[in-house]
Amino acid sequence: MSTVPSPDYFDVPLPRPVVKPGEFIFSAMHLDHAHIIGMTGALRDAGATLKSVYDPDPVKVAEFCRAFPEARPVAGEADILNDPEVRLVAAAAVTCERADLGIRVMRAGKDYFTDKAPMTALRQLAAVKDCVRQTGRKYLCYYAERLHTHSGIFAERLIRRGAIGKVLFMNGFGPHRLNPAIRPPWFFERKKYGGILCDIGSHQIEQFLQFSGEEDAQVQFSRVANYAHPQYPGLEDFGECALVGKNGTAFHFRVDWFTPDGLREWGDSRTFVVGTEGTLELRKTIDPAVPEKTRDIVILVNGREEKRFLTEGKVGYPFFGELILDCLNRTENAMTQAHCFKAAELGIRASDQAVHLDRIIKSES
Amino acid sequence: MSTVPSPDYFDVPLPRPVVKPGEFIFSAMHLDHAHIIGMTGALRDAGATLKSVYDPDPVKVAEFCRAFPEARPVAGEADILNDPEVRLVAAAAVTCERADLGIRVMRAGKDYFTDKAPMTALRQLAAVKDCVRQTGRKYLCYYAERLHTHSGIFAERLIRRGAIGKVLFMNGFGPHRLNPAIRPPWFFERKKYGGILCDIGSHQIEQFLQFSGEEDAQVQFSRVANYAHPQYPGLEDFGECALVGKNGTAFHFRVDWFTPDGLREWGDSRTFVVGTEGTLELRKTIDPAVPEKTRDIVILVNGREEKRFLTEGKVGYPFFGELILDCLNRTENAMTQAHCFKAAELGIRASDQAVHLDRIIKSES
Repeated sequence: MSTVPSPDYFDVPLPRPVVKPGEFIFSAMHLDHAHIIGMTGALRDAGATLKSVYDPDPVKVAEFCRAFPEARPVAGEADILNDPEVRLVAAAAVTCERADLGIRVMRAGKDYFTDKAPMTALRQLAAVKDCVRQTGRKYLCYYAERLHTHSGIFAERLIRRGAIGKVLFMNGFGPHRLNPAIRPPWFFERKKYGGILCDIGSHQIEQFLQFSGEEDAQVQFSRVANYAHPQYPGLEDFGECALVGKNGTAFHFRVDWFTPDGLREWGDSRTFVVGTEGTLELRKTIDPAVPEKTRDIVILVNGREEKRFLTEGKVGYPFFGELILDCLNRTENAMTQAHCFKAAELGIRASDQAVHLDRIIKSES
Repeated sequence: MSTVPSPDYFDVPLPRPVVKPGEFIFSAMHLDHAHIIGMTGALRDAGATLKSVYDPDPVKVAEFCRAFPEARPVAGEADILNDPEVRLVAAAAVTCERADLGIRVMRAGKDYFTDKAPMTALRQLAAVKDCVRQTGRKYLCYYAERLHTHSGIFAERLIRRGAIGKVLFMNGFGPHRLNPAIRPPWFFERKKYGGILCDIGSHQIEQFLQFSGEEDAQVQFSRVANYAHPQYPGLEDFGECALVGKNGTAFHFRVDWFTPDGLREWGDSRTFVVGTEGTLELRKTIDPAVPEKTRDIVILVNGREEKRFLTEGKVGYPFFGELILDCLNRTENAMTQAHCFKAAELGIRASDQAVHLDRIIKSES
């Protein structure tokens, strides 16, 4: 046995607010997905000052203001877009409307931070890219399954420090609970949410690009199905995709809406990374069937040992402070624009190219 | 909380020998893969009587006889093929030679039990099928990752009893340690081992067919690479495959030769099964980074709870006794001939159709 202690990687201080109150002002609008709560809270924790909120539905605004009493409800989008103090707009509109909204925000001179997926069609992406070029504004996305998890940030730290050598291939599982009773109608319309590989698949692809360092990739194969929800014909309840990066890193992921009600979390989200010198497994949300409920577990196996890291609460989410500073300094430390767009593009391509197993199931049986 | 206790599924007695000494006599020959030890031991534990052993290499024979002192070494294949007492031949020849050997065995009037993969080419499969039809003998295969694991047998019991409803889709990981120093030269020759998807992939496909109840499937996509072993140009160190069953069950698996030296097992073998009513995860070989080394863990999540089953030593391997009785009674309880062949066929197809990432890696970089 080696006597050299293995590194514990917990040597980076927790992120702290990067600006003082009033130094970076943002607003929230279009509250169609509850992710807006997580987005707003994380920006606030990183030092940003929330000024105002808008949604056509006063119930959604009231709910938002219960979580963020400092937010001033305003009567229309224009009240935010025309407010010179507001530097950034955070939004979680219906997925297919996120691009148009972002274009309005950027044309008003503000940066835009949208829930994932950031768009649902390649023509939306082209329009957004044009607008970014013309306005110089940012169109960034809340890929929460990496950037808002301790384990996601921690795993990237391990990879960057060479803990598993060069990343060769990865697998990801993104199961989610359907909860149909609390979902709005647009959630079940394929055109509006973009298909499962575009929607919850975009998280997966973003992680792949980030962990592997790949800047481009191709979709080699993808498939979707509606296995068990005939009452929602527009729902894809299963999706799978195989990508390969330009430098050869392989990635496969599966997403689905089959989290059983007995799981203590919304989904048992996993990421597996295999490198030349070791492997990582991320159990992001739960270690299933372990009595003490724990999230953000990272398991490293290398040439010497198996090691379990409990990262919950010990890493933090540097993305949000970096995003604020990127907006102020026009840098790209939180996430490059190209990376944000590439993850979106590949999710849309995976969705558009997918083989529909439903048709196979029906034609064969 | 429900007050009805959930079933523990440990209500089936451990398998016992199905025949008395001398009632079912078998021999072993062609000891090219060490799996022959596991195959022979399991048959013996199920009551079979080992009579003789042959391999051209006396070192391999001596090693075998250390494990099974009752085996009488013989001078040639013919001594076994012409022995009227021998009903079954167990063998682990070089993979590409398994079909020809099986044909010789069946023509001698004996059943054949080969290590996986049972063959490496579709023309071998066709010849073997002809021979089975002509001789009425059995050509069966040691798909050990299901039939020689407590967790594999236990998971099937749960599925058959409806613990997760109808199986919809599955994922499997079959990483293995390369150990190049102890591997014979044929192990690195693509034509001889059949490619990674045929070789260690056949385990995966067999499990898929068994757990899903699918009798036929198509390979929708497969890919292989040699990522990190340029010194073995014939080695595929990574393979991935997506299948869909005739009734629509989806399956994806990944196999590789990247088990890090620090893992306490040869590989962290996993199977994930998603059904309409719940999910299963099998950690067959190890629960990585858990101090107390445990294998054969099955995690069930259903509509009510998360449950962890420790199955090691509590289930047994009914396959081997069923195989003996199938040979005696000409039944098909252990495994149908069609199932054995279908798993082999799909592995060969996956291997033959695979996209080679090596070419992408080389052409792009």
